[in-house]
Amino acid sequence: MQAAIDEAREGMKDNHGGPFGAIIVKDGKVVSRAHNKVLITNDPTAHAEVLAIRQASEVLENFDLSDCEIYTSSQPCPMCLAAIYWARIKKVYFGTNKEDVAAIGFDDSLFYKFIREEDENALEMLNIDRKECLELLREWDEKSDKKMY
Amino acid sequence: MQAAIDEAREGMKDNHGGPFGAIIVKDGKVVSRAHNKVLITNDPTAHAEVLAIRQASEVLENFDLSDCEIYTSSQPCPMCLAAIYWARIKKVYFGTNKEDVAAIGFDDSLFYKFIREEDENALEMLNIDRKECLELLREWDEKSDKKMY
Repeated sequence: MQAAIDEAREGMKDNHGGPFGAIIVKDGKVVSRAHNKVLITNDPTAHAEVLAIRQASEVLENFDLSDCEIYTSSQPCPMCLAAIYWARIKKVYFGTNKEDVAAIGFDDSLFYKFIREEDENALEMLNIDRKECLELLREWDEKSDKKMY
Repeated sequence: MQAAIDEAREGMKDNHGGPFGAIIVKDGKVVSRAHNKVLITNDPTAHAEVLAIRQASEVLENFDLSDCEIYTSSQPCPMCLAAIYWARIKKVYFGTNKEDVAAIGFDDSLFYKFIREEDENALEMLNIDRKECLELLREWDEKSDKKMY
């Protein structure tokens, strides 16, 4: 966890983004390390965990990181949590919790309410052209050389 | 939506990833277009919506896409939905729904259960070193040149 904290401090120093760092470990060795870079990259998805996953996937040449663990200085937001899930990482070590993070202005409680269907105001979702999009899924399903993942 | 479908078809053709495409629009003009690239990039976060957001942020040089709308061929997964939320996009047009997508093998229902606290088995979450990580948040909070976002 100290390595994740050091990463966060490094990013904070140069105003790359918020005070968040993450490390991915495989067989006791660090595979990737990253800090939040939302401000310096203008990329709203550049959270520490997402960047650490992207780097680890690149290093290991695999989108399946099921033999890795992630250490992150704060409880992952829903985007990062889902990214960890898609990367098939099974174990997450986190430091501060979402209430600690909300207390300094990084609040994801509205999104949690939205995804739990307790509040529908966070995003307006409109379903259109389902028929045409279903055709796309049918084409995929019938594709003989598709690779499932 | 047709542009999002075309994007998805383009990616499918070359086996870049699953049959998913997304388009971001601002003032009636397309700002970015992307398809799923999980397989070709080995990046588990390379979903169409995330890639479209990254591109739009780069083009507009802003992590705040609140004046944009997104068209996506399928209902966004929780990672993409949270990415849309962090990008401050307010309106999402989607084609097929999560049940349609699950029917061809892309199932995020386990993750939905996890984030709704109905199933805790998807990920093992371990809280460690909260005190040291809280110190990091305190440093940020007291930082005189921090930029909130």
